[in-house]
Amino acid sequence: MSSVQIYDTTLRDGSQAEGISFSCEDKIKIALSLDKIGFHYIEGGWPGSNPKDLDFFSLIRSHSLKNAKLAAFGSTRKASLAAENDPSILAILDSGVQVATIFGKSWDFHVREALGTTLEGNLAMIRDTVAFLKSKGLEVFYDAEHFFDGCKANLAYALKTIEAAQEGGASTIILCDTNGGSLPLEIKEFVELAAGRLSLPLGIHAHNDGDLAVANSLVAVQAGAVQVHGTVNGYGERCGNANLCSIIPNLTFKCGLETIPRENLAHLTELSRFVSEVANVHPDTRQPYVGMSAFTHKGGVHVSALLKDYRSYEHLPPELVGNRRRVLVSELSGMSNMLYKYKELNLQVDKQSPEGKRVLEEIKNLENQGYQFEGAEGSFELLLKKAYNGYIEPFTLEALRLMIDVKQDGTAYSEAIIKMRVGDRVVHTAAEGNGPVNALDNALRKALESFYPCIRSMRLTDYKVRVLDEKDGTGAMVRVHIETGDGHSSWGTVGVSENIIEASWQALADSLAYGLLKGDNLEQKKDDKEE
Amino acid sequence: MSSVQIYDTTLRDGSQAEGISFSCEDKIKIALSLDKIGFHYIEGGWPGSNPKDLDFFSLIRSHSLKNAKLAAFGSTRKASLAAENDPSILAILDSGVQVATIFGKSWDFHVREALGTTLEGNLAMIRDTVAFLKSKGLEVFYDAEHFFDGCKANLAYALKTIEAAQEGGASTIILCDTNGGSLPLEIKEFVELAAGRLSLPLGIHAHNDGDLAVANSLVAVQAGAVQVHGTVNGYGERCGNANLCSIIPNLTFKCGLETIPRENLAHLTELSRFVSEVANVHPDTRQPYVGMSAFTHKGGVHVSALLKDYRSYEHLPPELVGNRRRVLVSELSGMSNMLYKYKELNLQVDKQSPEGKRVLEEIKNLENQGYQFEGAEGSFELLLKKAYNGYIEPFTLEALRLMIDVKQDGTAYSEAIIKMRVGDRVVHTAAEGNGPVNALDNALRKALESFYPCIRSMRLTDYKVRVLDEKDGTGAMVRVHIETGDGHSSWGTVGVSENIIEASWQALADSLAYGLLKGDNLEQKKDDKEE
Repeated sequence: MSSVQIYDTTLRDGSQAEGISFSCEDKIKIALSLDKIGFHYIEGGWPGSNPKDLDFFSLIRSHSLKNAKLAAFGSTRKASLAAENDPSILAILDSGVQVATIFGKSWDFHVREALGTTLEGNLAMIRDTVAFLKSKGLEVFYDAEHFFDGCKANLAYALKTIEAAQEGGASTIILCDTNGGSLPLEIKEFVELAAGRLSLPLGIHAHNDGDLAVANSLVAVQAGAVQVHGTVNGYGERCGNANLCSIIPNLTFKCGLETIPRENLAHLTELSRFVSEVANVHPDTRQPYVGMSAFTHKGGVHVSALLKDYRSYEHLPPELVGNRRRVLVSELSGMSNMLYKYKELNLQVDKQSPEGKRVLEEIKNLENQGYQFEGAEGSFELLLKKAYNGYIEPFTLEALRLMIDVKQDGTAYSEAIIKMRVGDRVVHTAAEGNGPVNALDNALRKALESFYPCIRSMRLTDYKVRVLDEKDGTGAMVRVHIETGDGHSSWGTVGVSENIIEASWQALADSLAYGLLKGDNLEQKKDDKEE
Repeated sequence: MSSVQIYDTTLRDGSQAEGISFSCEDKIKIALSLDKIGFHYIEGGWPGSNPKDLDFFSLIRSHSLKNAKLAAFGSTRKASLAAENDPSILAILDSGVQVATIFGKSWDFHVREALGTTLEGNLAMIRDTVAFLKSKGLEVFYDAEHFFDGCKANLAYALKTIEAAQEGGASTIILCDTNGGSLPLEIKEFVELAAGRLSLPLGIHAHNDGDLAVANSLVAVQAGAVQVHGTVNGYGERCGNANLCSIIPNLTFKCGLETIPRENLAHLTELSRFVSEVANVHPDTRQPYVGMSAFTHKGGVHVSALLKDYRSYEHLPPELVGNRRRVLVSELSGMSNMLYKYKELNLQVDKQSPEGKRVLEEIKNLENQGYQFEGAEGSFELLLKKAYNGYIEPFTLEALRLMIDVKQDGTAYSEAIIKMRVGDRVVHTAAEGNGPVNALDNALRKALESFYPCIRSMRLTDYKVRVLDEKDGTGAMVRVHIETGDGHSSWGTVGVSENIIEASWQALADSLAYGLLKGDNLEQKKDDKEE
């Protein structure tokens, strides 16, 4: 089976994305997870351009990587300096890596305009830089920047530049679609041309400006490339780089090629979400293979077919990439989706019963107000329990007051006062917090912990605010989504209101009520009462 | 020049996306904007499956569409009913459209498992349904569901199903990659096969499960298809449908084909954002062509080259699709980006001056705290003005108090008390609102309007809350981003704090301060004082 090397540039090209800024610790964490899943190369940074990157290369040395080789990025030497005197080239040597990835110009327009040198001068810069780094014992990859645009503008010259890199001693030539505007069949043509001209292995480095980076990478492999450069989740400048989370399963499951070990693909979704968390970027729910919605079904026709055979509307089993199947309850879905959901929750329900119809009615009504039970299984199950009687609420609100003071110097004080009924008792207490929602959370817990000690083990793991109709400005409805865990499992809850405090209250109260409902937590309270 | 018809299914397939639910009015608004930009076909809904869709078809009749023909979607008749007796087929006739798009099964596995009928029975269902609708005067498009998976499983049968549609009198056969898992070169092969077998024009309907929907659509056109089905922004079930906002400019500018009128492409970004607003989905900032980041530059190397020639790092001028170039200020960027920003703001700055260095230092520091000046030009310019002296703040905060009461029945009351200094005067006032941030907004305006009457023309057009480190739960930092307009222009401002009230205060105060700074608004205040 043929194999393709995976070269990750999340830490360098990925950090060029709008809204992304990695600390050195972030980069270490990501590098270790890329190594663990089996990527072949990790580009750690550009030591000659960003001094912070040298810290990364120095810190990473105390960790031993199992699978990946580290690469440092850099440009060809300055026109006016010899490679051995160019500080940015010397910074690569200082970084202590085994692989140097050097980019140079392939497009005659760029040589003249951006670099301000002659075509011959550029060839010498490429040749010298590669040769110097190779002479120092490094493996050198040559990134042919703007290769495809260069081919379209001046084919003969573009080919000369990669020949210069081969002469200098590069071990692999990576053809870059730097502006991301090339089409799959153009990529195919020029990769085949380059392969015919060089004796070296080729790689592909694509950007997504035409929404074609994944396709362009696949086609390049089909045309002979054996190394793919990309980033986790496709993070990168402008529209991003080629998305390795799509390319790897496509190459593995669709093209039958070897990339990372096949069993490690089951950790791909985890890797994707980990990197988005470290990058502090909202995961793209629709992202192929690894997105929250990637195997999520809403249309009633699809769901009723899925109930018969999962292959009906899925291109591959979600488990292969560590993702999971979800079925949504919504107005489009009808009874098939409800039944699927009941089955998932182990509830016995007669779909013709008045309760069944009433719940469906109420869900539609709440969804119209902006509730979304997708990802809020806790609130959804509480709703069902309430509809089917026999459920006693573990606590109810009597009154709630929040006071926030902001002083001239910007310091703020938040206090929550809460009055609640628990069984036949009334608790009235107060707490402060570093913001109003935190104060509310603290007061609620303070009020309930003596009745339900197990609440101490429940931790908020995620708090999200979504302004529902942003154009209504500060008067808009907001939806608060909370994720809570108790060490064994986690659950989502939701609240909606024009008032962020009220919405947060709903989601917080549901999160604890659902935590108590799970397992025997409610029994504990009942026993207390009987004593 | 060859032309390709654009068939939009945002209103039907797009509404299957997780988190999207269109009201009838939403659908009318979107249909009118699709017509205006020049799409050829608009699929309005599935009247036989969703009764709400009949309202849409009835309401849209009072609007006259200039460019687009309306299509209604439906399946082949039930196995047990004649087409003329099948209520879902009759619903299409009731909808009053000119075009019926009928989907049927191409994959033998689906015929047996999902449909539960014989292979021959399915062919008759296809033939009859198409023939019946054609006999009623409709143009019939036939959607060959799972066509590519069907070809892989049983090629002879898949081809028979599209022949049955041709025999029934379909005018176009659309080949569907329903599960979205096919590769570009497979699409090419089977489109060419189908084209060789049929005398009818072909269309392509691709899904994005392999991150290849745009490429698959392009390759299908290159293999002979003349109609492309897709959705605005690629909204749709699971990972979405083929994204028309990428396909149209690719076909127009890269392949030289005629799609919608070329000059209308300058409204593509506007269309994309309008549909995301109506759908109430956050725009994908990285979206090719139309995303906020699509022509946004952050890397210092890129920016310094762009300052010389914009072609350096852009695959096409953003104006062609109605987008714009942006340059970000951040730690990666260095002086080139700052200089670009200064130029954009018409500020004369000596980059070696202590002020220039101090500002860069402060920006880095604030960005570390979570501030993001990308999209917050108002706060950024205020920062610069403050650094360069000569700027007098139009108002300053003395103290701020917020009180929120939530009662047992869920009703809430929010009140803001604010004390501010304006020049040598102190204002102390209060206001209520439907939530705490709205109360704050109201109190701030109440305090300032008598000093600066022009504040009345400034309207909040967007209010966003981003929890910066969601895993810190309710104690996390939040970033508030506000967009404000005065009818002539609009500007963004930002605030960051652990306390959402404090963060909102910062962004609100900046939004008004910046509004006053623009134009002569501050002069107005000065004149008042001199009187």
